[in-house]
Amino acid sequence: MIILTRSEIEALIDYDLASDAIAAAYRATSLGKVNLPPVGHLAFPRHGGDCHIKYGHVDGDPIFVIKIATGFSGNAAVGLPNGNGVSVVMSAETGEVRAVLHDEMLMTDIRTAIGGAIATRLLARKDSRKIAVVGTGIQARRQVEAHLALMGDGLTFQLWGRSPKRAASAVKELSDKAAISVAQDLKTACRNADVIVTTTGATSPIVMRDWVPPGTHITAVGADAPGKQELESALVGAAEGLYADLASQCLDHGEFAVPASAKLIDAGRVVELGIVLDDPTRGRVSDEHITIADLTGIAAQDIAMAGIVLRAFERKG
Amino acid sequence: MIILTRSEIEALIDYDLASDAIAAAYRATSLGKVNLPPVGHLAFPRHGGDCHIKYGHVDGDPIFVIKIATGFSGNAAVGLPNGNGVSVVMSAETGEVRAVLHDEMLMTDIRTAIGGAIATRLLARKDSRKIAVVGTGIQARRQVEAHLALMGDGLTFQLWGRSPKRAASAVKELSDKAAISVAQDLKTACRNADVIVTTTGATSPIVMRDWVPPGTHITAVGADAPGKQELESALVGAAEGLYADLASQCLDHGEFAVPASAKLIDAGRVVELGIVLDDPTRGRVSDEHITIADLTGIAAQDIAMAGIVLRAFERKG
Repeated sequence: MIILTRSEIEALIDYDLASDAIAAAYRATSLGKVNLPPVGHLAFPRHGGDCHIKYGHVDGDPIFVIKIATGFSGNAAVGLPNGNGVSVVMSAETGEVRAVLHDEMLMTDIRTAIGGAIATRLLARKDSRKIAVVGTGIQARRQVEAHLALMGDGLTFQLWGRSPKRAASAVKELSDKAAISVAQDLKTACRNADVIVTTTGATSPIVMRDWVPPGTHITAVGADAPGKQELESALVGAAEGLYADLASQCLDHGEFAVPASAKLIDAGRVVELGIVLDDPTRGRVSDEHITIADLTGIAAQDIAMAGIVLRAFERKG
Repeated sequence: MIILTRSEIEALIDYDLASDAIAAAYRATSLGKVNLPPVGHLAFPRHGGDCHIKYGHVDGDPIFVIKIATGFSGNAAVGLPNGNGVSVVMSAETGEVRAVLHDEMLMTDIRTAIGGAIATRLLARKDSRKIAVVGTGIQARRQVEAHLALMGDGLTFQLWGRSPKRAASAVKELSDKAAISVAQDLKTACRNADVIVTTTGATSPIVMRDWVPPGTHITAVGADAPGKQELESALVGAAEGLYADLASQCLDHGEFAVPASAKLIDAGRVVELGIVLDDPTRGRVSDEHITIADLTGIAAQDIAMAGIVLRAFERKG
């Protein structure tokens, strides 16, 4: 049984290999090749805690993965991170435990970032260079890294956060690797961007219809539970292209939930990223369209990341 | 994060502490103090494989446990054990990963054995000394060990198996610690026993109504899935006392399933062991009665074992 810590895992992740594996995970999900039982859940109301157990198996994959993720809202008060987690990698051929990856959410953060960058690369106008990033947390930083890794060095970023101090801090941290500056004003940043990446836990919309010009692509990764929404419903209603990692999830508890229940969009319009990767004609059809990709997270990505880490460890020997 | 292997775990298990914890787990289960979501399941039909994910939390317990157990029927052909598993112990206060117990089924084997010995101690006639053990596998051996640990050295065992060779081998292995011999004939062994412990995966009954005299107690741990049955339905129908670790499970896929669906027993007669531990008047009421305890396994026992191991490790410092 292989045991790897967060820092060991981080050193084993190659963005190129991971993006191929995550693109394959999108395809496998949309083409019905993933056995994905319902997510398990335990609540710990006394400590503001939750545990989600996600597991599944991709047809023909020699491994399967059980990902255990927790969030305890009281942790900040005792100086601990809110989120925690571990992935157990099992052989799908013998049932043996192959590895315990004690990543403390690292693999989830990175697969979400790579999943976002894949969506942007797939759906943004080919000449897109200017990216507005909304949010100042870990995921905002990871999205900048993943977009650079997948789309090359020609990108420029403007980062906006409700806290100017945290925005300045994130920009400072990223300034070594990215051409990045703080956006003073989100409206202006959106109007000037080719791509908007939203990464916040906002529970009411922060990016408005009127701020987003034709031709913009938006990758939204923040809304992953009922009650969260980053994009004004009218913006979703106005977008010509609606994309999702998993349509049913995004319509149930992602960015498309409120617009769908308000009848501003028709569920049938949402196209899964795996379908577009399989058939690129299902992607953006005009440089004048607004496209939105909403990501809520899928277990096949977790399996893909665990596989990448395990194979890299084995190659290292 | 603590990582323990099978042999490290075995060295940490104290049968007295474990039996207290497992008795408490029975009580917590029957008194509604366990949050127990449905068991997760993945199948791997190409390799004859199954994975079950059991998880739960006992009210007020500082830990919770996710137990991952696999069985792959093709493993014997490649020289591997059929069953495998690992338990992940998490803090119920912060969500942190406390320990990964790579027990390869050891804790399940031992908690099942202790659970069986608790049932026997609770329900058999007080003067019971002669125990017939049915089966020759790991669980038969563990039941002998657990009954000795919980009920003292005055016990004598007769062990029966379909394969005389495997029965002889099990008896030889146990003869250092137990007064044990091979039973040539199961009928005679049952007629002479105070207690019968059945541990096989039989899919049709092997212990018959006519073999079991008044006053006998039977602890049945083999049937844990639809299609398995060790006791003749008429025997279950004739027993005055019917006990279960979890009544709903035993009536659904344990020893009581067939007799209940044949209307030989009334579901309302099945009393949970946790209820008897809480109120001993609900146990055996006459030395002339036949009592049957059926065990199908409950997550609270897995949590209890993990807690025992973790606390023993921490005491050792």
